[in-house]
Amino acid sequence: MTETLFTGISQLVTPSPGPQRGAAMRELTVIENAALLVRDGVIAWVGPAGEALAATEPYDLGGVAVVPGLVDPHTHAVWAGDRLADFEARSVGVPYERILAGGGGIRSSIRATAQASVEELSALARPRLTALQQSGATTTEIKSGYGLDFEAELRMLRAIRALGRGFSVVPTLLIHIPPTEGREAYVRGVCETLIPEVAAGQLATAVDVFCEVEAFSVEETRQIFTAAHAHGLRLKLHADQFHALGGTELACGVGALSVDHLEASGTPQIAALAASGTVATILPGVTLHLGLPAAPGRALIDAGAAVAVGTDLNPGSAPLFSTQLALALAVRLNGLTPAEALTAATVNAAAALGLRDRGALSVGLRADFLALRGPDWRELPYALGMNPVRDVFVEGVKP
Amino acid sequence: MTETLFTGISQLVTPSPGPQRGAAMRELTVIENAALLVRDGVIAWVGPAGEALAATEPYDLGGVAVVPGLVDPHTHAVWAGDRLADFEARSVGVPYERILAGGGGIRSSIRATAQASVEELSALARPRLTALQQSGATTTEIKSGYGLDFEAELRMLRAIRALGRGFSVVPTLLIHIPPTEGREAYVRGVCETLIPEVAAGQLATAVDVFCEVEAFSVEETRQIFTAAHAHGLRLKLHADQFHALGGTELACGVGALSVDHLEASGTPQIAALAASGTVATILPGVTLHLGLPAAPGRALIDAGAAVAVGTDLNPGSAPLFSTQLALALAVRLNGLTPAEALTAATVNAAAALGLRDRGALSVGLRADFLALRGPDWRELPYALGMNPVRDVFVEGVKP
Ligand SMILES: [Zn+2]
Ligand SMILES: [Zn+2]
Repeated sequence: MTETLFTGISQLVTPSPGPQRGAAMRELTVIENAALLVRDGVIAWVGPAGEALAATEPYDLGGVAVVPGLVDPHTHAVWAGDRLADFEARSVGVPYERILAGGGGIRSSIRATAQASVEELSALARPRLTALQQSGATTTEIKSGYGLDFEAELRMLRAIRALGRGFSVVPTLLIHIPPTEGREAYVRGVCETLIPEVAAGQLATAVDVFCEVEAFSVEETRQIFTAAHAHGLRLKLHADQFHALGGTELACGVGALSVDHLEASGTPQIAALAASGTVATILPGVTLHLGLPAAPGRALIDAGAAVAVGTDLNPGSAPLFSTQLALALAVRLNGLTPAEALTAATVNAAAALGLRDRGALSVGLRADFLALRGPDWRELPYALGMNPVRDVFVEGVKP
Repeated sequence: MTETLFTGISQLVTPSPGPQRGAAMRELTVIENAALLVRDGVIAWVGPAGEALAATEPYDLGGVAVVPGLVDPHTHAVWAGDRLADFEARSVGVPYERILAGGGGIRSSIRATAQASVEELSALARPRLTALQQSGATTTEIKSGYGLDFEAELRMLRAIRALGRGFSVVPTLLIHIPPTEGREAYVRGVCETLIPEVAAGQLATAVDVFCEVEAFSVEETRQIFTAAHAHGLRLKLHADQFHALGGTELACGVGALSVDHLEASGTPQIAALAASGTVATILPGVTLHLGLPAAPGRALIDAGAAVAVGTDLNPGSAPLFSTQLALALAVRLNGLTPAEALTAATVNAAAALGLRDRGALSVGLRADFLALRGPDWRELPYALGMNPVRDVFVEGVKP
């Protein structure tokens, strides 16, 4: 048994275990001059420092704020190639259709990723995960989806598994882009071949679908969800990014873990999320990078939904390598308060991954937490372009 | 004489010495597989590595991109106290007037700054300057302006001077906030007492005025400019942040170094800037943090103006601690291309400070440059929440 008492905590700030919905997202517990006892990687006690029973020499954090480790519930952190030429082209006004026609855009990421080995893919992703972790992410979801053909998808998932040695990673199978021909056979193959293989190999804990005019229909999403559910995989959805097609309502109806994006969500979609157990995940990095509308984070919380926030780290629509900055952007671009943003980036983000064992500093949960640089936790949502996180602890130790 | 030949440069990318105006802002020189010879802190030669004459052992940068050091032409990096409570209040919808009435807002920064000693002020600013420098700023402007009373203003300027030991700093006297009573006497005191004292003590190289409905009028600005000019100080202006009062036209007419903010600039102000030698400095961090309109960066360049970009680092309206992120935000929020943003953050930002000796990688200029983490310079405008700068060189050495 290893036991560490962390002291020198100016304030310990945490949401309650959750997910937390609506106004409860603003209710943080703040303990001034706190201590935190960790036993075998799990929180054993938390309270005012004066009441702590120190068995051993305490670990003095030096008078800074402590918050739960962030959970990044939506990334595409595994890719090969780069999209710098696309970025430059788009900035001078070249339409995305012409970038695509010229061999750029998402098809270039698919090409480069399909050509890379498992080892190459995980090596390329490792510095990205390091950046997310240094910014405060103690758990990171990573999706497949640039593979397109099944062998390449499986290579992506094996690369994600390899990243799990060193990082706390949650793998998701993303059914991202339909083939230009034979989409019916493709969807059948996803349901009858890919999903069973992923489930048998325990290569993902959930299946995600990109439900959009240019991607998969609501009916195709339903077929894929049915197969995923039959194989014991949880459900996630990219929906309402450009068009509210009904995917959000479908996902809420079948108990999906989360619906992500939501920039085009209107009153019916917000109501469906608020009435369901499905987490609404917003991705402000896309809003900033592409200059598109922001997801209605404020309206979702006011309606009573459980909102999470993630980076959506990917080379095309969100080169956002900081989970802290995603949290900070949710305050600026989606109208969240600092307290709501902390809840969104911790306990609600964990719930969006089906994880109830982390995201809050409560007895019995994983001792994933951050020691900030200063004594006031609000630096975390406030700082832009500076990392307010000094130390990251995963299961009570620096990774 | 010390001489260093830098090699291992995948691409050396630079604007020409400037300032550069309009379409010329997009014209970068790119030398693939380059070398850079530095003699006594100055660029002695630059060209293809194969043509370099190596006298000594070269300094191998390992195959990464090199760009000029960034110049941050607009910061308020010296302040005491914090504005975290204001940030939280604003996020839950408390109007700024009520924050001010409750003792918060800019008056709280003025109160805390006026109570701090020169040593305290410079100690508080040092980690902020370190953050800017790590993000790529090799020269940083810092304004006074939270002092209000003259003694406190002079303490701020002395703190800025103290920061000059360790950082390359350009000090500006900012006439920021009129007193609630006796503003005529105050402006007279600025002209007859403060400016002469600052000029005699060489405590600033320029005088800046906040010309705005809630601050100083165009007529008061003219009086202050006249006194500054008479004492050999250069002129700068905060204008058109909320209202286009005519300050921009005044500043252009009297040859000010720069007009900064410009969010409310319309066609006449853009035309005045394009027709003048005055640099138009945009501050996208304010746009992001406050959710206010963006300055018309695209229209300014299309009209032929010389545009610069800065962080405006300050605790109330732009807690933006990265000059790189300011550059990256100018692409997203102000419509600049990556090349224009690099020019805006280097040679044009230097011109906004009256400096012609830096901002481009040309023979005879200061050897202030950045070695990035990767081989493609476009990571600099592309990356969000990750620092693409690996090494900072000031006058040829790591500071
Ligand atoms: Zn996504
Ligand atoms: Zn300013």
